[in-house]
Amino acid sequence: MHIDILTLFPEMFEGVLNHSIMKRAQEQKAFSYQYVNFRDYTANKHNKVDDYPYGGGAGLVLSPQPIFDSIHEVKEKAAKPPRVVLLCPQGEPHTQQKAEELSSEDHLVFICGHYEGYDERIRQELVTDEISIGDYVLTGGELGAMVVIDSVVRLLPGVLGNEQSAPMDSFSNGLLEHPHYTRPADFRGSRVPDVLLSGNHAKIDEWRHYQSLKRTFERRPDLLVDRKLSAKEESWLEELKNS
Amino acid sequence: MHIDILTLFPEMFEGVLNHSIMKRAQEQKAFSYQYVNFRDYTANKHNKVDDYPYGGGAGLVLSPQPIFDSIHEVKEKAAKPPRVVLLCPQGEPHTQQKAEELSSEDHLVFICGHYEGYDERIRQELVTDEISIGDYVLTGGELGAMVVIDSVVRLLPGVLGNEQSAPMDSFSNGLLEHPHYTRPADFRGSRVPDVLLSGNHAKIDEWRHYQSLKRTFERRPDLLVDRKLSAKEESWLEELKNS
Repeated sequence: MHIDILTLFPEMFEGVLNHSIMKRAQEQKAFSYQYVNFRDYTANKHNKVDDYPYGGGAGLVLSPQPIFDSIHEVKEKAAKPPRVVLLCPQGEPHTQQKAEELSSEDHLVFICGHYEGYDERIRQELVTDEISIGDYVLTGGELGAMVVIDSVVRLLPGVLGNEQSAPMDSFSNGLLEHPHYTRPADFRGSRVPDVLLSGNHAKIDEWRHYQSLKRTFERRPDLLVDRKLSAKEESWLEELKNS
Repeated sequence: MHIDILTLFPEMFEGVLNHSIMKRAQEQKAFSYQYVNFRDYTANKHNKVDDYPYGGGAGLVLSPQPIFDSIHEVKEKAAKPPRVVLLCPQGEPHTQQKAEELSSEDHLVFICGHYEGYDERIRQELVTDEISIGDYVLTGGELGAMVVIDSVVRLLPGVLGNEQSAPMDSFSNGLLEHPHYTRPADFRGSRVPDVLLSGNHAKIDEWRHYQSLKRTFERRPDLLVDRKLSAKEESWLEELKNS
């Protein structure tokens, strides 16, 4: 996979893209990336890339010209049209499913505005996907792009070893993860549940499954709305509702 | 505000915390931060901070001891107990409201696991807030911490000038932002809506308000469920539903 990142602040990305798993993914040639500083493309004689909004109001709006021209150049070099992702609070909420979908692409382009709005013509004519990483406001689109890139790259073949893949993969079965414990069995008076020390794997699996459902019910009941429940899950859920 | 960041990968944060608005916020003394590499606190003779899960299964789990001891030291130096935030997919979904709440604190501590699970005793005994930045899986808690920190620090007094604050502030009135346009009025054949060039501010405000509602209805109807609508918004919504 190749990723082009349109940003005024390429240095912001360096720490995230060049350590740990993202670094190894590049060494494995699972992905490569390039920055496109769209200020280099502006036709404005003062090097500006934004301007006041039509109709008035506070804030600045990213001008269409530098973004159109830099995307044009990215596309000219590409064998086929890439997905063009705009990070913004008005986008479709990012999900694990969306990360999986994007991980099957060969070429992604990310447009990161920095505290400005985007001229609407950028959305209408250039962008294939508007994504929001959550219902909160950030100083720019850079962190959103890093989050989406991280969520996508870790899914590329060979990037994660088994040891890294399992424990944080909530969402894969639609429930939150069950609690985890490691040594010592008694840490300053706080003990690991007996079942986990029992060696009875059927009981351990059942305990974990129940804890997953319980945690989801208590913390994120919204995740249960669209999920098909097994008969056992239904009966546990009844029990939880009545307790 | 002071922020302590418990992480094995401090270098990942540097680009994000030391550019643009986050950099200026430190220069203005709006916040300071410190890394706590919890590997420095491990009692394990091989310097390990994680171990196999009780009950079996793939993946590793962060051991309680290094986290307990590093948090203990952070708390000993503090005038009063800080909020201790754990980044994890099982946490409460991060929101603008949560960012506002955290922005009133003097001292925040972030615990960032890195692809491992967390020993449950960390959650039970040390953590005041478990936060998830969205329903997707990342390679670690570092990006989540950066996202929460960015969303909180930008709200600290004096950090954002007016020019930066307005245009991306979706969510503040419960609707998505209306479209923005800037010069030129005709960009390669694509024109700005006439109303924005009209100079009629009442009409412009009405157009923007309607576009906000329309965009929210089309993209994020979930945001309308709990929001009180004005009579005008109700009638627009009826119109949108029927069209």
